[in-house]
Amino acid sequence: MPHIALPEGLPGIRGAMAFRPETAGPLNELVEVLLFGPHTLTPGERELIATYVSYLNDCHFCQSIHGAIAAAHLGGDEDLVKRVKADFQHANISDKLKALLVIASKVQQDGKNVTPADVEHARSQGATDVEIHDTVLIAAAFCMYNRYVDGLGTTQPRDDAMYRERGKMVARKGYVEGSKDFLPAATSAR
Amino acid sequence: MPHIALPEGLPGIRGAMAFRPETAGPLNELVEVLLFGPHTLTPGERELIATYVSYLNDCHFCQSIHGAIAAAHLGGDEDLVKRVKADFQHANISDKLKALLVIASKVQQDGKNVTPADVEHARSQGATDVEIHDTVLIAAAFCMYNRYVDGLGTTQPRDDAMYRERGKMVARKGYVEGSKDFLPAATSAR
Repeated sequence: MPHIALPEGLPGIRGAMAFRPETAGPLNELVEVLLFGPHTLTPGERELIATYVSYLNDCHFCQSIHGAIAAAHLGGDEDLVKRVKADFQHANISDKLKALLVIASKVQQDGKNVTPADVEHARSQGATDVEIHDTVLIAAAFCMYNRYVDGLGTTQPRDDAMYRERGKMVARKGYVEGSKDFLPAATSAR
Repeated sequence: MPHIALPEGLPGIRGAMAFRPETAGPLNELVEVLLFGPHTLTPGERELIATYVSYLNDCHFCQSIHGAIAAAHLGGDEDLVKRVKADFQHANISDKLKALLVIASKVQQDGKNVTPADVEHARSQGATDVEIHDTVLIAAAFCMYNRYVDGLGTTQPRDDAMYRERGKMVARKGYVEGSKDFLPAATSAR
């Protein structure tokens, strides 16, 4: 049961956002830029970074929904998502994404763990400064979203079909548009 | 030296925000609502939560600037800021704020560490659901800001006077208005 009186029927971050639309606005806008907006990394690659960090933070809701969104972007390849979580160094992803996942996993522990060698290696695999910046910020942001979702004791269903269905919708519409079914129009339309 | 080519002369998060104004917008809007906007907790109380979490995450820039903003809101009481960091249970703050700092310190480690007893205790000291929600989100958000600032290897001056001066300005103007000196107008004016 949630620690505070969140609206019922809205699992995970959705209940928290509906409770406090004033913060939901910037939270949705941030994730829209990082994971859905125009980028040299594909949406699938960026969702894999978010999923992996959420997995490291052991947040069931976030790793499930972002894993589902990642799979939707990747042609439904749920096995690849599982493989990245279990052992990304041997998953069928680019060497550049592997190097970025190393940086993300360092940030998940502590930003100070990122070394010049980590960044140099990512650069040698073709990563740009914006890609490195956004990897650091995606990893940092999911250390926030995961703690927000877990810290309020939100409901986090064990229901793969629910995540799969919603994941397809968010992969199609994005975060700001995709939140209009549970947020006041004035907030989600900002 | 920063890991990527951040603009020079802008320490901490300012260089990172100037590098990527697209994410600076929502990052500033979030902290504006949480720490500066209308609230039943004073700006000083909210800045103390942000400072304490940044101290726990050992982020020099964030604990220095938010400590300075907190002190500016608290009539220049830098000793109180130091006392909260060192031993908040014996600092001259309300029992409600102590209960909220306990929740914030749990979230800093892992949101799942927050217990119903922690929340019940905060409520018994007068905390509302919005205050508990915002405490969780402030703590979670600073787990992001701290990792963002440290993960990019930003410059973090050891210069108390710089933090004190800027802290006074942000305490007066807030985050969105206070960022106009280093962010493009279109971003900070959103």
